[in-house]
This record gives sequence, structure tokens and C-alpha cells, in this order.
Amino acid sequence: MATEENNTSIVVFSGDLDKAIASFIIANGAAAMGGKVTMFFTFWGLNILRKENYVSPNKKGFMEKMFGKMMPQGPNRLGISKMNFGGLGSRMMKKVMKDKNISTLPKLMEMAKEMDVKIVACTMSMDVLGIGEDELIDGIDYGGVAAYLGEAYDSKHNLFI
Amino acid sequence: MATEENNTSIVVFSGDLDKAIASFIIANGAAAMGGKVTMFFTFWGLNILRKENYVSPNKKGFMEKMFGKMMPQGPNRLGISKMNFGGLGSRMMKKVMKDKNISTLPKLMEMAKEMDVKIVACTMSMDVLGIGEDELIDGIDYGGVAAYLGEAYDSKHNLFI
Amino acid sequence: MATEENNTSIVVFSGDLDKAIASFIIANGAAAMGGKVTMFFTFWGLNILRKENYVSPNKKGFMEKMFGKMMPQGPNRLGISKMNFGGLGSRMMKKVMKDKNISTLPKLMEMAKEMDVKIVACTMSMDVLGIGEDELIDGIDYGGVAAYLGEAYDSKHNLFI
Repeated sequence: MATEENNTSIVVFSGDLDKAIASFIIANGAAAMGGKVTMFFTFWGLNILRKENYVSPNKKGFMEKMFGKMMPQGPNRLGISKMNFGGLGSRMMKKVMKDKNISTLPKLMEMAKEMDVKIVACTMSMDVLGIGEDELIDGIDYGGVAAYLGEAYDSKHNLFI
Repeated sequence: MATEENNTSIVVFSGDLDKAIASFIIANGAAAMGGKVTMFFTFWGLNILRKENYVSPNKKGFMEKMFGKMMPQGPNRLGISKMNFGGLGSRMMKKVMKDKNISTLPKLMEMAKEMDVKIVACTMSMDVLGIGEDELIDGIDYGGVAAYLGEAYDSKHNLFI
Repeated sequence: MATEENNTSIVVFSGDLDKAIASFIIANGAAAMGGKVTMFFTFWGLNILRKENYVSPNKKGFMEKMFGKMMPQGPNRLGISKMNFGGLGSRMMKKVMKDKNISTLPKLMEMAKEMDVKIVACTMSMDVLGIGEDELIDGIDYGGVAAYLGEAYDSKHNLFI
């Protein structure tokens, strides 16, 4: 069991900028400490993994088109969970982070990849929200709840964000 | 300690449909993998356990009546945490799940019972929100924070949703 | 490893009254059971630790002033995560808790201190939101993600709230 002593699993359910930032800061910190880290993106969290300005060539139903249009595409489009004011709060937070030289979300995501944080997109949520693999960034894994639970039971530190 | 290696405890604080679905998918998956699973419903999460269209015969104070009327009664009445639009988003999500043959929340709750997932309603939250035992579905347990912590410390995998 | 068997770490990301109450009830319960308990306050959770009616003498930028003015100062000013209605829901919940003799948030925070629950403010979030140490209550610790992860890996029970 020694190997699992500093593994981390995080379910990223939220698609809010502030919670996404918190998720990656914890994930990257845990990876820097040498443990295996798995992030499992489900429901609104999938929006963090969406490509910007990408329109899927796949034929979609009405509902899927609706969800697809209304949900933010990628890390630069996310709102914050409080005081967003139609995007103003989100822009303010990004400006402050830039001014203070704190890594932005796209940068945190790059760092996660470099540190071999495992990014898994929840296939069932993709089905519900009508998101295809072509709409998500490259270099990620796909899995369901069994894949998640395998990682969670192999981890010392599990969070749902 | 071998026995606890794949036990799960989940605090279900949220009463949003999407988070309730995520909670039960994780709980049922964990139960299918053979571990003991406990779900502790507190605050808004109690609404998931409310009977539909039930009016309690108990005398209630003004506050309790207010909370009772305004909070959703049971799994079919819940909204989603984002893009609910007065219930439209919730109906859309339920329709998509039905079309794609994904289990709905009431079905997931039935499956949880069949797999012996332990459902516990938080007695302190019931007191705060003025919810009596008669208003909640049958076959559940009741407990406070000590009961929850006992399960959490006996689990490998703990989440707050 | 015996020592860590009932330690708890909680990331308090949310600044909602209902979630803050849940955090402290779990933390105090865990401390009463004899484990080491660490609460790590980050993002909106920092508002729980703010002094009431305090105006910092430090020179702040425009963004920091904005965030500082709009975010609630301390446990008596927090809203609830659902049905807040501009503060009405929050007042209702506090009244009900008082009527039913349930400890209020300020009381729960006092109890946490008495039981040696470790309160840590996230320094990176303080930087982002422009909150100085002088604005937070006394007797707390300061740290970053590494400090948090150290506690989390030393705990059996980890939550993100």
C-alpha cells in the first residue's frame, strides 16, 4: 500500500473558473510532491476541456446544440461561481492574477500535462451534454465511474470540486 | 483495516439534480465494487429524500412552512445547478437522459436501495429546515455528525457534494 | 500510521453561511473525536475569517477595493447558497437556529478554536482577492497549497466544501 500514500483523485464537477483554478493548483501541487494525480472531469467540468471556437461537424440533436451553444468553451470562457456579473468578475479575477504574476488557468493546465497529471473526461456526462471527443482538447483519457473509482480507491486524498 | 479498503462515504449537501445524479452514480458504482457505501443527506440534500406532494399534518411554525413550501419535494422536482432557467434546464436534462437510456434519479435511488447503500438523513438539518420524518421516504436511517464521522473514518473514499 | 487514523482536513472554498456551518460542525465533531483537524480557507471561504466593519489602512488597488467592498465581512454577513433572497433566507436560517438552540456560526468558530482546530488562510487567495492579514481574525495560520497537502496526506478524511 506504500505506493498510494500520496496519490490524489479529484472529481471536477464544476465548470466555474475559480473552482477550476483551485482544482489545478491542488492537482499540480500534489503532482509536484511526487504522487500520482487523476482529475476526473464530469458534467459542467467538461467545459474546462472544450476547445475554443470549435464547431463540431457531427450531426447533433436540438438539445445537444442548445447545451453546446450555451456552455462555455474552454478555460478562457469560464465565469466565476460568485460575483461574476455577466463575466465582469471573471475578467477582474484574470486581470488581478496576471498583474500579480499568478499562473492563469490555461498555464496551470499546461503545467498539469507536463507533470503527468492524468486528465479523464467522463463519458456518461459527454453523452448527456452531447459533447463529442472531437470537441475536447487532445491528450486526455476517457472513462466512466468504474475508472474513477479505481483511481479513488488507490488514492489517499480524494476531493469532489 | 482490510475491510475498509473500498468503503465510501458521501455527504450530499446539495439538492441540485445534477449533483444528486452524480452522487448516486458514484454511490452505486462503489456499491457494485463491493464496498460499504453511506450517503449522508444534509441541508438542501434532504430535499432529494422528500416525498412528492406530501403535506405534513404536523403543526409547523411560519419559517418551517416557508422553507417547506419553497424547497423542492423529491427527485422529480429538483433543479440543476447551472442553466436551470426556471426548470427548463432540468427538464431538458431529464429528457436527454431518457432519450439516451440513462437511468433517471428515481431509478438510481431504487438501485441504491437494492444494493444496500445506506441512506442517512441528518437530524440537525431536519430540525433547522423543519422537516419531519413523516415527510421523507421510507427505509432510511437518521443520524447526526457523529454517525457520519464514524462512517467516514471507516472509509477509504470520502466526498462532500 | 496509527496517528493519522482519525485526522481530518477540510478545504473551505465556499463563503456561504450554510456551507460554513456544515464545515464547522464536521470539524468540531472530528476534533471532539480526538483527531487532528485542519481547515484550509481559500477563495470565498476567506470571507468567513474577515473581521466585521474593518477598513484596512493599507493602500489598495481599484480591483482589491472592489472585491473588498463587495465581499461579506465575517460570519454574520454571509448569505446562504440557495434561497438567500438578498439576505432574507440567511436571516431566516439564523433565526430558526437561534430559536432551536443550535449554535450559530460565530459560536461554532469559537468552539473550533477551543478544541484546537487549526485554521489556515490560503495566502495565494489572499493575494488574488487583495485581503491582508490585518483584515482577518487573530489566532490563525497562513499557508499555501503545500501546507494544505501536507495535512491532507496526513489525514484519513479529506473534504472540499
